[in-house]
Amino acid sequence: MKILFVAGDPKPERWTIPIQELLPEAEVHVWEPNGPAVNADYAIVWQPPAELFEREPQLRAVFNLGAGIDGLLAIPNLPANLTVVRLEDAGMSVQMAEHVLHQLLEASRDMETYRAQQRQGIWKIHRPIKRSEWPVGIMGLGHIGKRVATTLANLDYRVNGWARSHHQLAGVECFAGEQDLDRFLGATRVLVNTLPLTDATRDILNYDNLSKLLPGAVVINVGRGEHLVEADLLKAIDDGHVASASLDVFRQEPLPAEHPFWARPEITITPHISARTLRDATLEQITGKIRAHANGEAITGIVDISRGY
Amino acid sequence: MKILFVAGDPKPERWTIPIQELLPEAEVHVWEPNGPAVNADYAIVWQPPAELFEREPQLRAVFNLGAGIDGLLAIPNLPANLTVVRLEDAGMSVQMAEHVLHQLLEASRDMETYRAQQRQGIWKIHRPIKRSEWPVGIMGLGHIGKRVATTLANLDYRVNGWARSHHQLAGVECFAGEQDLDRFLGATRVLVNTLPLTDATRDILNYDNLSKLLPGAVVINVGRGEHLVEADLLKAIDDGHVASASLDVFRQEPLPAEHPFWARPEITITPHISARTLRDATLEQITGKIRAHANGEAITGIVDISRGY
Repeated sequence: MKILFVAGDPKPERWTIPIQELLPEAEVHVWEPNGPAVNADYAIVWQPPAELFEREPQLRAVFNLGAGIDGLLAIPNLPANLTVVRLEDAGMSVQMAEHVLHQLLEASRDMETYRAQQRQGIWKIHRPIKRSEWPVGIMGLGHIGKRVATTLANLDYRVNGWARSHHQLAGVECFAGEQDLDRFLGATRVLVNTLPLTDATRDILNYDNLSKLLPGAVVINVGRGEHLVEADLLKAIDDGHVASASLDVFRQEPLPAEHPFWARPEITITPHISARTLRDATLEQITGKIRAHANGEAITGIVDISRGY
Repeated sequence: MKILFVAGDPKPERWTIPIQELLPEAEVHVWEPNGPAVNADYAIVWQPPAELFEREPQLRAVFNLGAGIDGLLAIPNLPANLTVVRLEDAGMSVQMAEHVLHQLLEASRDMETYRAQQRQGIWKIHRPIKRSEWPVGIMGLGHIGKRVATTLANLDYRVNGWARSHHQLAGVECFAGEQDLDRFLGATRVLVNTLPLTDATRDILNYDNLSKLLPGAVVINVGRGEHLVEADLLKAIDDGHVASASLDVFRQEPLPAEHPFWARPEITITPHISARTLRDATLEQITGKIRAHANGEAITGIVDISRGY
């Protein structure tokens, strides 16, 4: 079995050595931009070049080093019948859940105010949080959205979830599809986006939808930059309807130096760190699936390319 | 039935009106410093004056408006056979749990670094958190400690708990008593104190014990100021053994303006806000217990005065 590792890591051996250890039966290659074909059975990829699919047309499956496969599906010559497998959880959903909670508390418990008070040596107690004033709405109920929703529900927040299809989740009221979207948004003050990026979800965080949130809304985007219409967020903040936003993803990353978000006190910027791929968990998952697939066993996480996730 | 409300609130009607609504059968009085005896059956108190127990010797029970009853027990003429009932949870443990998680992430995920980067317009990703490097130890396994422990365990942190007596808690390794303390401290990087304040726990966060924590330790004190020997914390930080601390409680509150903690970048100060008493939940609990007690039913939360909690 031949495996081709295709990711822009300057130290690919950090990946290929453990892959080899986990799959001693495999021959592991690293992608070389102008190298020869290796006739790989499987590729492990992150934002691979389009040439991959010309040079290695016999690939049996491609394993993506992340949960979001929008970048991969955007490749124009992606073979239509290719088996694409996305990363499932691998330690990411729990990171996302704690990051979202942290950012929620920044807003709901006014943590910056207490930091500012400390800088000035001020001891002053503010009104305590009333959970009833901070209903949370999670867009997207995949592995990540579910974990975020459950974590917040376990902390006694009122949590609603919205997804394309109907879900059932203890402690979370679930809404489904276009027809429920307005009702979902109208019940939400803290909007958390964990949607996959597809043609149906691109630009979903637009002025129209942001305006339907409860007043004093907080927008937490840990999905993709392309979900958010950036100018619309600024407009909704200038309206006073959206109070603040915590953004971990952007249309252009790194966020350009001249971008207006940097200077906005209402916007918290983190550099795409809400959930990082953890190498050990990721490689255990992917190599386990490669072995299973090679043995003809069923594996989970295969992308429905027509649906986009 | 007569109820006496004894707390320094400048607007006692915020409490007495709902008490009267919840207990229409009661006659509700507000403590007046030089007023007459009202022959109350029950008192609802926060830091009451010693005169209370001289003027109202017939009290059947005293209900404390907080979980910690160290202030109440310190009153010298407290009748030895008085029934003292502490507040149980009433929305406090969940606040404590989310606050502790927030402060843990400040350390483990370096959130201040990202805020500082934003102020400078810098996009830079740092090493992701490895949960294995952040074992948490919770001191005190009452309502609050258990909720904190469970919340962090549900987020895949390694969590140990330590209390006077043995506890069982899913996902949490529990240590008990003096003989386990060193082992507990030696397995802990993030120390969270939720202990009650008693003669046995006063000064427990001292230099000797802080030095037994794992290197790069983080101390989160949401218990009482008197648990922490303040000079010892500064010494352990100066040693480099304790990396940072998040303190919500202090020996003197408000923390005096000249206190060295204010200026320490390693110390986060919050003004005793990690868990606030929520009036509605508190009064529902206390009035429910008063009615039960008056009817001769058993109630929970009665303090063992000899033990101190």
